Amino acid sequence: MEFTQQTQSQLANLQASLESQYETFRLANLNLDLTRGKPAAEQLDLSNELDGILQGFYLLQDGTDVRNYGGLLGIPEARQLAANFLEVDANEVMVGGNSSLTLMYSYIDHMLPTWRAGLVNDTDRIKFICPVPGYDRHFTICDHFDIDMLTVPFLADGPDMAQVEALVQQDPLIKGIWCVPKYSNPTGHTYSDAVVDQFARLSEKAGEHFTIFWDNAYAVHHLTDTHDSLKSLMSEARAQGNQDSVVILGSTSKVTFAGAGIAFLATSPANLKAFEKHMSVSVIGFDKVNQFRHVRFLKDAQTIEAHMRKHRDIIQPKFELTDKILNEHLSGKGIATWTRPRGGYFISLDTLPNLATEVIQQAAAIGVKLTPAGATFPGGLDPHDSNIRIAPTFPSLDALQRALEVFVVCLQLATVNQLLSD
Amino acid sequence: MEFTQQTQSQLANLQASLESQYETFRLANLNLDLTRGKPAAEQLDLSNELDGILQGFYLLQDGTDVRNYGGLLGIPEARQLAANFLEVDANEVMVGGNSSLTLMYSYIDHMLPTWRAGLVNDTDRIKFICPVPGYDRHFTICDHFDIDMLTVPFLADGPDMAQVEALVQQDPLIKGIWCVPKYSNPTGHTYSDAVVDQFARLSEKAGEHFTIFWDNAYAVHHLTDTHDSLKSLMSEARAQGNQDSVVILGSTSKVTFAGAGIAFLATSPANLKAFEKHMSVSVIGFDKVNQFRHVRFLKDAQTIEAHMRKHRDIIQPKFELTDKILNEHLSGKGIATWTRPRGGYFISLDTLPNLATEVIQQAAAIGVKLTPAGATFPGGLDPHDSNIRIAPTFPSLDALQRALEVFVVCLQLATVNQLLSD
Repeated sequence: MEFTQQTQSQLANLQASLESQYETFRLANLNLDLTRGKPAAEQLDLSNELDGILQGFYLLQDGTDVRNYGGLLGIPEARQLAANFLEVDANEVMVGGNSSLTLMYSYIDHMLPTWRAGLVNDTDRIKFICPVPGYDRHFTICDHFDIDMLTVPFLADGPDMAQVEALVQQDPLIKGIWCVPKYSNPTGHTYSDAVVDQFARLSEKAGEHFTIFWDNAYAVHHLTDTHDSLKSLMSEARAQGNQDSVVILGSTSKVTFAGAGIAFLATSPANLKAFEKHMSVSVIGFDKVNQFRHVRFLKDAQTIEAHMRKHRDIIQPKFELTDKILNEHLSGKGIATWTRPRGGYFISLDTLPNLATEVIQQAAAIGVKLTPAGATFPGGLDPHDSNIRIAPTFPSLDALQRALEVFVVCLQLATVNQLLSD
Repeated sequence: MEFTQQTQSQLANLQASLESQYETFRLANLNLDLTRGKPAAEQLDLSNELDGILQGFYLLQDGTDVRNYGGLLGIPEARQLAANFLEVDANEVMVGGNSSLTLMYSYIDHMLPTWRAGLVNDTDRIKFICPVPGYDRHFTICDHFDIDMLTVPFLADGPDMAQVEALVQQDPLIKGIWCVPKYSNPTGHTYSDAVVDQFARLSEKAGEHFTIFWDNAYAVHHLTDTHDSLKSLMSEARAQGNQDSVVILGSTSKVTFAGAGIAFLATSPANLKAFEKHMSVSVIGFDKVNQFRHVRFLKDAQTIEAHMRKHRDIIQPKFELTDKILNEHLSGKGIATWTRPRGGYFISLDTLPNLATEVIQQAAAIGVKLTPAGATFPGGLDPHDSNIRIAPTFPSLDALQRALEVFVVCLQLATVNQLLSD
């Protein structure tokens, strides 16, 4: 029965029962963590052969010695691998170090003088559109660079494009938009073909040097047999002559080693040339040995697919367990909705308004850490205080089950408390 | 006999003979490169066991899984290794990715808002002191950030400290100085203890937040049995309470793999905390797997010393050959002076005034590439146009000999041409 349909005394009984369960958990001195989208150790084990895979061979076909300096765009073999991964041409790719976040940060740092050159008044500020809920580290980069963030709702087929288009038409100081187009962080949704088509033409409506940051972090990270497919933004943008508005990011952080993979950035050859010059001040070349290891290990699309299937075998049960527990304890009560992603690393859950902070605090107080409330919104401010990002991949199944059992009690208890105090 | 003592007709004969030698070289269609301080393939071979050294073990003593995210300061074992290397405390160290250049760039990027907060007038500019000749990539970073560069002469025991002290006392907008304190790039000289002591107290004379960039790139790169020793700047600065003015850089780029080593930055714990926060916007953590590889491979000071001895065995003959050819062809003629470094990667040669560009162009015209004239000065402008940096490590002994034979002919020919045209 829905909580809101219950009488005061029914709610009071429920409260007493939930408080007793909460107390039991408290006495168990738990220490569990559902905060970040980290691969589990068994997933990392899948790539253990990376170290040693070169077997003493460090020369590329073109004679390049990957051990020595140079080659800021990355080794040709890795650029080709990334091109397949991101569905772009190899000459549009820079292969970086272990972090696509660093490439995003550097690209914005690179563009800022260009964007700022268009400012007229002292009070003018560069702005980005942020579909919400979204990825906190994107917002942190904007904060760092004093870029204002305008939110638009993230719908099941991508951002609300009517709002996005209206915003960029109104304000030429909007210079960018953050997108996680496939198995999005945190909802798990994938942009529809129609939305991708709108993105391919978005720069036509926007101010000069408008840039789409297309963070395709979960391109091959399927959780079910039904693989979402994402239309190639670069192909479509190229067809429209808008390739300069596209910057695509990706990495192997959740394919091989989270902290020791390789990252990719793809954009038009003209943009890439300018970005390479910018980067050359601070980087002689990224780690080509590790790029070569990844080429040897991941080889081609089929090898990557087979490898990702092994990841799925490890984490799909965790997503299923999460959905099962949420269903058992929350469904039919009108107190929470959540996503059932077909890929990616997260489940996005919404409580009733003004409860997320309370739920997360209550869970933390008895040893279950969740992503901070509001983290999926710019400035950490969720206007409804209702979104909670659940990251089920890192804990063991046992730990996950225990953490979720605590979570659903905290969520119900916070909801009942609020209903009773209304 | 000195060239300047020769008659016009003696010089004309010499010119004819040199032109004939030049023509012979031209017909040989050479393609040789003495431009950058790159290790030779045999040097890189010394570290081939890095790939595979972990043998499937990825856990640190403290339980950290080096394959996963996190740990922006680096793994404890690598911080300790770097601390020994740089003669600082482990809690003063960040271990980065494959590039100390990136750490320098990021540190300046981090400090700029603080430095700029002290500017009063719109036309005020941040300034750095650059001992010359110096390292071109340091100057490029200053250029990139619109930092003015003030040069001071680099003497045999370090920068001209009287000038350095007078400058920082005069101008509080001088916020930094670039130093390569040991086996300096390009002269090979090492700072004396007295100069290090002066650096340890330099911030007392300078404007707020004055920072010494102590790029100790060649800390263990000896070429002879007589090892230069460099007094620990951090120890001395700490003793004076000036540890916040010190940023020490280092890397294994010329110890293991030039493009796939690990880099270090050391500064006071207070500075390090602020820098870590700055870096956390763009980096979740550097490649800890590669840090762990390096800990396993380089182990301790004795292992590093034995390893560097093998490097010396490969490159010392190249430095000796260079000195021998320069001696045979240039000595006693009053047309060039050059350094005989006991370590590092370069020989610094000075021609008579206004000849370096000409010599380098003539050599390039027949297939021998040298570091561009002026590269060792800010803006690429050597006021005397006389400094040439020779990098003998990368070519084979045969190629090096041929390249130097061309170089000494070009140098003599350019000198004779100038003397005849005076």
